[in-house]
Amino acid sequence: MTKIDPIELSRALIKRPSVTPADEGALDVLEGVLKELGFKTTRLKFAEVDNLYAQFGETAPNLCFAGHTDVVPPGNEAAWASPPFDAEIKDGKLWGRGAADMKSAIAAFAAAASRAIEAGAVKGSLSFLITGDEEGPAINGTKKVLAWLHEQKIRINHCLVGEPSNPEIMGDMIKVGRRGSINCWLKVKGKQGHVAYPHRAQNPIPALLRKLLRLSETPLDDGYERFQPSNLEITDIHIGNPAHNVIPEKATARFNIRFNPNWTGPSIDAWLREQLDALATETGAKYELETIVSGEAFLTTDMNFLSLIADCVEKETDKRPEYSTSGGTSDARFIKDFAPVAEFGMVGATMHQTDEHVGLSDIETLTDIYEAIIAGYFQKFGGVQK
Amino acid sequence: MTKIDPIELSRALIKRPSVTPADEGALDVLEGVLKELGFKTTRLKFAEVDNLYAQFGETAPNLCFAGHTDVVPPGNEAAWASPPFDAEIKDGKLWGRGAADMKSAIAAFAAAASRAIEAGAVKGSLSFLITGDEEGPAINGTKKVLAWLHEQKIRINHCLVGEPSNPEIMGDMIKVGRRGSINCWLKVKGKQGHVAYPHRAQNPIPALLRKLLRLSETPLDDGYERFQPSNLEITDIHIGNPAHNVIPEKATARFNIRFNPNWTGPSIDAWLREQLDALATETGAKYELETIVSGEAFLTTDMNFLSLIADCVEKETDKRPEYSTSGGTSDARFIKDFAPVAEFGMVGATMHQTDEHVGLSDIETLTDIYEAIIAGYFQKFGGVQK
Repeated sequence: MTKIDPIELSRALIKRPSVTPADEGALDVLEGVLKELGFKTTRLKFAEVDNLYAQFGETAPNLCFAGHTDVVPPGNEAAWASPPFDAEIKDGKLWGRGAADMKSAIAAFAAAASRAIEAGAVKGSLSFLITGDEEGPAINGTKKVLAWLHEQKIRINHCLVGEPSNPEIMGDMIKVGRRGSINCWLKVKGKQGHVAYPHRAQNPIPALLRKLLRLSETPLDDGYERFQPSNLEITDIHIGNPAHNVIPEKATARFNIRFNPNWTGPSIDAWLREQLDALATETGAKYELETIVSGEAFLTTDMNFLSLIADCVEKETDKRPEYSTSGGTSDARFIKDFAPVAEFGMVGATMHQTDEHVGLSDIETLTDIYEAIIAGYFQKFGGVQK
Repeated sequence: MTKIDPIELSRALIKRPSVTPADEGALDVLEGVLKELGFKTTRLKFAEVDNLYAQFGETAPNLCFAGHTDVVPPGNEAAWASPPFDAEIKDGKLWGRGAADMKSAIAAFAAAASRAIEAGAVKGSLSFLITGDEEGPAINGTKKVLAWLHEQKIRINHCLVGEPSNPEIMGDMIKVGRRGSINCWLKVKGKQGHVAYPHRAQNPIPALLRKLLRLSETPLDDGYERFQPSNLEITDIHIGNPAHNVIPEKATARFNIRFNPNWTGPSIDAWLREQLDALATETGAKYELETIVSGEAFLTTDMNFLSLIADCVEKETDKRPEYSTSGGTSDARFIKDFAPVAEFGMVGATMHQTDEHVGLSDIETLTDIYEAIIAGYFQKFGGVQK
């Protein structure tokens, strides 16, 4: 059996311009490598999105590595120092779209898997859940693969997501949960009129502003174990009134709340309506509120699993990683309903940017960390779960 | 000499579709009538706008009637019960664009002038200052005609503007001044970022909202003799952020203040900066403010002139009209620098609307009121001013 070079595999993956929802052969590259290692692979195509589930071994426990081969668009390619899909190596770094987020982490885990399999360390099953729809709407990706696994009665016992969890330096941070996210649209209707006759009109803007300020100035909570306080950000106000002398008929604002496990989407919605109703009673100005929950908050509490990852990271980097729940959402929000999940991958400092890159030595270090996690996992959990 | 029928002359004027800056022969109609009455007429063309100054007599005092033959666009002509420039008479009313604002008032004053001249009541001079640029930018109209009169050493002693001053019923209201108007743009700059990392960004929206609410909730004054309190209306907020997960870089608002003679444009500007500077010191959020004064406040205090008008209105309508300074701006804001000015004309309820119309009997009543004002004016002021 051939050992896998994580840097060469990273380059092979980056060379496939798999901008969501295109795959451009990226999953074929990975599937080919995993087949050679003895993985049983299944391609799962939902609408225009291609996904891959691959499993080595048939017994419990099943440690799953989850990630995505799709990448965000490169933007203005001329602004890149080297073309975004050339995967150039220069100055000890690998440059290209997907280098940080997250093709190198997939390659590192595949390389770690090859070493662990050769060493006979896999006392159970090792699997890959790889989607092509993480950077897009995330409708035809991880969520549907998990539903398929459930139907097939394939159980994942623990999951490690390879998102770039380290803000600056390899070993900074393990993500052990994520805040929830809810998008909200608040509308106030008034009565149009001429600014010179305000008594004949009803300006909806001050009423909207009072509501927005009340909401944004009222603390939601003081934080939650490992979580920042929940936070509301007003992102847009739309009035669209071109006339200097006209009081507009309506005013709409959009805001987003990132919330910790003190809340759920529905409880945030109820809190918002309670605040707005109280204000409507005080001021007489009615409102319309629409909310869409894009993810619930969660926290992984399986300390056996988390401390294993942290110990392996510390052994290879001499840094004790922080357990964090900061940042945006990821596919971990779907996985958490099936298995304890944590996220550890590359350094994310340049993700989604022009000249995205990672250190070559970081790819090697991550491969070593993943190898240690796989070995440690089956020592710790092997034979316990059937 | 032929007497003028005010209804027929109103119809002849309405039939000319003189939407600003087009004239379409409207001033020719009026000039022809005034020439027949013995007026000396001068056409004053500034850029694309045609204007008319006409004077009967050469001695002081000179009572000037000011107005405009231009009209606002009819909008969707198909929505009108009868075509907007057909000047149809139906149900005792005259229908058409300009019926209320303000071709009927011009016709009524011309008819009143013909009667006064025939009766030998004009002991001094009677003049018309008619522009084709009142509904437009008002740059090439009344303002430039007044400058020309000044150059020609032609003095106006008192001016009656024929704007539709009555909100509902003939005799409601004489306008004896106008509030000033200032347009303001307030901008707050922050720092763009991801909503999941608010500590790395600086959301300009809450800072803008606090500034706007502070300004709109701080009373400017308690009113002024015959004036409502000064008033601020927020008319637009522009952010233009399409992304749900992005904190925008900047936020801009537009507001308008209508102010009474407690203030001038520059003093309002200074007050705004004082309020905003205080708030910037409290909150640390800087701002940019731009203001454009579109008119200063004024109040006509010549009670001899105002009471003459009010007495004539009361005699013909059995209503004592209110002295008011409400509503938007008019060309009176230019005239007030040259002579005491008041505004009295038709009922304005349908002005600028589809199916604009006035009562035929109101045109007759207004002609009688104007006739009484002309006669009373020369009894009261004739021979006093040379």
